[in-house]
Amino acid sequence: MSIILYSLCGAETARPFSPHCWKTVMALRHKGLDFVESPQAFTEIPKVEGGVSKIVPILKDGDTIVSDSFDIALYLEATYPDRPSLFGGEGGMVLSRFVESYGLTMLHMAVTKIAINDIHAMLGPVDQAYFRESREQRLGKPLEDFIATRDAEIAAFPEKFATLRHLLKRQAYLGGESPLFADYILFGALQWLRVTTGSIHLPSGDPVAGWFDRLLDLYDGHARKVA
Amino acid sequence: MSIILYSLCGAETARPFSPHCWKTVMALRHKGLDFVESPQAFTEIPKVEGGVSKIVPILKDGDTIVSDSFDIALYLEATYPDRPSLFGGEGGMVLSRFVESYGLTMLHMAVTKIAINDIHAMLGPVDQAYFRESREQRLGKPLEDFIATRDAEIAAFPEKFATLRHLLKRQAYLGGESPLFADYILFGALQWLRVTTGSIHLPSGDPVAGWFDRLLDLYDGHARKVA
Repeated sequence: MSIILYSLCGAETARPFSPHCWKTVMALRHKGLDFVESPQAFTEIPKVEGGVSKIVPILKDGDTIVSDSFDIALYLEATYPDRPSLFGGEGGMVLSRFVESYGLTMLHMAVTKIAINDIHAMLGPVDQAYFRESREQRLGKPLEDFIATRDAEIAAFPEKFATLRHLLKRQAYLGGESPLFADYILFGALQWLRVTTGSIHLPSGDPVAGWFDRLLDLYDGHARKVA
Repeated sequence: MSIILYSLCGAETARPFSPHCWKTVMALRHKGLDFVESPQAFTEIPKVEGGVSKIVPILKDGDTIVSDSFDIALYLEATYPDRPSLFGGEGGMVLSRFVESYGLTMLHMAVTKIAINDIHAMLGPVDQAYFRESREQRLGKPLEDFIATRDAEIAAFPEKFATLRHLLKRQAYLGGESPLFADYILFGALQWLRVTTGSIHLPSGDPVAGWFDRLLDLYDGHARKVA
């Protein structure tokens, strides 16, 4: 077994939840590559492979180590060109960056505001202390302040998907008739929300929920098995 | 001269303003194709080329007629494959649809709310009557109701570009180091706003304003000459 993916988990290693790591899991499955996922606690990540990266995902493929989900996708595309493409060419590669920016600007803060206390509850004690300190510093307020606003964030959540919902009237995936890495970029955000809170907080008839369901079904339902 | 582009104008034919037609103008320039632009008033469009389409752009290339800006881009890419690519391959083609959905869901209603009375003022009397009736029906209120909310819409406008602004920290264009059709899709919305209101309503230091400026400079400053 040559490929190892270091990802992120809380107290239970069977429930990896990082959006960026899920992008990589789906990219590896898309390429049909065998790999072993090695979920790590937040405070264990700096020790992985001799401290190569402070953040996951970290991919080890033989002697090559790559971190950052987009860089890993680029690496996989260049290294395994005979496997199904993640980008569909150079234009797909650069425009996937726009989708990445969409996920980061439109979805990630919304998921954070909904899930932050759920995430905290999933962690072991050492990680809980790290998570509280780093997130409270980054967000400028106590984690508990997000409890009161959670319902309003959930109510506002479906609207964040207006662009994707509009697109799905035309095509089944961002990649057209079948998914590309761009699909996994946005999938990651919803899988993060699903694993940490138990729901994607979208109405079941929403085309975005249908798209997400189709992605959960891919690759023997790999992503659906984690909940 | 074989290519004719039918576009949209008000009382002055020298000031075509449709966002979708601007996408096509830039796509034709990108391909380095000679063309004649034939701007039409709203109520003249149904008479173009024997009534082939109710909406512009309409492209006539020899015996071929194509309408819809995206379909025209696909036609140009297929018909002139040796010219610079508008999509950078199949993946770029499908992901440009996501950018199109982004423009339609995030930007077009915002521009409409800011510019609607400016557009009305640009039109001849017959078109003014058509425009008022069709837009008031579509939007559910008198054009004059948008006057009171215009300043608030302008204040909220820069935030609509959060995704593009985030991307532009990484790369000069959606297309990477040089523009693709995806750039022209979002350019069209801002050019529509610029021609109809005289401003793009973004701070001059905004990276999005810088990107728009670079696009205005392209092709001998073609788009900048219309104001």
